[in-house]
Amino acid sequence: MERLDVKIPGREYPVYVGRGIYGEILQGLLHGLKPGKVAVVSHPSILELHGQYLMDTIAAHKESPVDVLTFTFPEGEEQKNLKTLEDGYRFLLNHEFTREDVLVAFGGGVVGDLAGFLASSYYRGIPYLQIPTTLMAMVDSSVGGKVGVDLPGAKNAVGAFYQPQAVVCDVEVLQTLTKREYGSGLAEVAKYGFLFDQDLLEELETSQQLSQRYEMDQEAIVGSCVAHKARVVASDERDVSGERALLNYGHTFGHALESATHYRLMRHGEAVAIGMIMAAEAAAKAGMAGPELQEKHRKILKPLLGEVNLTAGLGSDALMEDMKADKKRGEEIRFVLLEGLQRPRLVDSLPEEIVEEAITEVMAEMRRAERCH
Amino acid sequence: MERLDVKIPGREYPVYVGRGIYGEILQGLLHGLKPGKVAVVSHPSILELHGQYLMDTIAAHKESPVDVLTFTFPEGEEQKNLKTLEDGYRFLLNHEFTREDVLVAFGGGVVGDLAGFLASSYYRGIPYLQIPTTLMAMVDSSVGGKVGVDLPGAKNAVGAFYQPQAVVCDVEVLQTLTKREYGSGLAEVAKYGFLFDQDLLEELETSQQLSQRYEMDQEAIVGSCVAHKARVVASDERDVSGERALLNYGHTFGHALESATHYRLMRHGEAVAIGMIMAAEAAAKAGMAGPELQEKHRKILKPLLGEVNLTAGLGSDALMEDMKADKKRGEEIRFVLLEGLQRPRLVDSLPEEIVEEAITEVMAEMRRAERCH
Repeated sequence: MERLDVKIPGREYPVYVGRGIYGEILQGLLHGLKPGKVAVVSHPSILELHGQYLMDTIAAHKESPVDVLTFTFPEGEEQKNLKTLEDGYRFLLNHEFTREDVLVAFGGGVVGDLAGFLASSYYRGIPYLQIPTTLMAMVDSSVGGKVGVDLPGAKNAVGAFYQPQAVVCDVEVLQTLTKREYGSGLAEVAKYGFLFDQDLLEELETSQQLSQRYEMDQEAIVGSCVAHKARVVASDERDVSGERALLNYGHTFGHALESATHYRLMRHGEAVAIGMIMAAEAAAKAGMAGPELQEKHRKILKPLLGEVNLTAGLGSDALMEDMKADKKRGEEIRFVLLEGLQRPRLVDSLPEEIVEEAITEVMAEMRRAERCH
Repeated sequence: MERLDVKIPGREYPVYVGRGIYGEILQGLLHGLKPGKVAVVSHPSILELHGQYLMDTIAAHKESPVDVLTFTFPEGEEQKNLKTLEDGYRFLLNHEFTREDVLVAFGGGVVGDLAGFLASSYYRGIPYLQIPTTLMAMVDSSVGGKVGVDLPGAKNAVGAFYQPQAVVCDVEVLQTLTKREYGSGLAEVAKYGFLFDQDLLEELETSQQLSQRYEMDQEAIVGSCVAHKARVVASDERDVSGERALLNYGHTFGHALESATHYRLMRHGEAVAIGMIMAAEAAAKAGMAGPELQEKHRKILKPLLGEVNLTAGLGSDALMEDMKADKKRGEEIRFVLLEGLQRPRLVDSLPEEIVEEAITEVMAEMRRAERCH
């Protein structure tokens, strides 16, 4: 097991990465926090798999009984809304939670984001723990304290920066992920590789086949990604210096893809993977990088997209519109582009033609590949 | 004009106190912040009085036009809820507000609390300014960054700590307050006197008649209170060391009074005034202070309660129940008691009999006084 610290001044916290560790770590954390009540925030489907062990673990954390309650809601990005949040507030109020009690986010990014914002705003903040259950959430959303819910048509439009007490990444839990969900998480791993970490990139590249990827050293991979995330978050928690913004590599294109397809056609990681291919294409067109960069992106990312089917109806127009809408509404339209491997740069104004061409060409390429399946 | 700084490390901000200053100061602040859009959050009734000047001032802050919009909602604590908050999010989204734009809270405590939480959570935080229009908000709620909305039966159950960019206390605006609203604010001024400031107390005492109080040096009074608040907030922003908790003097009893009368029978300051009389009574009963303390409270606070009518139906039982409910739900039941003037102490466990006796006796005394009107 590895322990990494997110060194935000005054709010430093640990991220534990290991296999089969979450029960023991959780007991230790609760022993320290001494809550009277614990609310596990999760989906029913996740608790069906892990709930009994989780409940028993929490209940056993000390001699005197602790109230363990569950607040669950259905899966899906569309559930990360103000309505679910309000249900959460009422749940905590009805069960008389105080600032001495604790929330445990047990799930993927949607659970972590919603539970974190709930914790940040209930009586101005109660402690919470993140136990991510997807590879995506382990390497990205569970660390760094960006929490929130969506408004209709505006992802993460309501939120806060609110750091957890601790994060527990237990790769054992990844066993229950589908191949597709796992691949989506690997796209986010690849992002760290392209931005910061050649070793990570080579490990992904050598185990080209998705089937082999389950054999990777998951602890080492998650540990590397968390270390990168922790470093970036510690130096730019509030996303102001531009350093944290680098983590949005592939995300400007990716968000537009997700939004234009109403979060139904592809997983977040898949959208980010396509987004990174588009970003590499844009970097080439802008004269920032050569074709090797594009090739490397295709080689590493395309195997992760086996199950994506882009509808023929989705055009680059819709994506362009979506990006402009983002710009109008609180989100700046900034691109992270690479000048080479591990050489990221924030680009504030990328000519519209380049953006549009990159989108059009990559979409056409993806559709050709789909027809050949 | 006086400028006081709230010295929270990394988020220091100024509070300006003066007469007839808000137009000029606001222009200067907006010149520095350079927003593309400004949303004034207020009540229709306030904008009827001050709106035109405010809008003209904002619009004139630079040569190029700035979009000035207003988001208003009706008066009343019951409007400080999730529904109004959601309306606010949609308003900002529909008008395409970005993190470069600015909210201006222009009103009393309800406006400031709601606008502040809206600002804290829209895209994880956009800048906001506080221009309090009541004495209560000037000396208390506008400074210190406690923002939020209520849940049914649970005041400030959803909220955050989120500091404004600046606060502008323009005592000229107090002209339009009713006598009753002004008196309610003076109760909060008296609180600072009892806790920290003998001069303030003497000034209140010598101008015994409410009619004379309009003749006080309002700038000096507001300045003294803000200085106390700024000092306490800077040393205990998050309400953890117990120092900020001292500012709840009179509030444990006061909240119970407000809640048991559904926020309809008395203003916040009036409830706090009665709460402080109860606290002095409790301190005497607990053997912490002598009868002089009680007398001083009655002398200074009773003149502020001219228009309060306690219903005969309100018993001490209801108040006790309310305090216990608060305790169960996130709020600790702690009392601030005085061992003498300017000698406050946090008391975690006050015997229930003492609390009940203090409530019963002060309520009976208040009702006798009402009958003699």
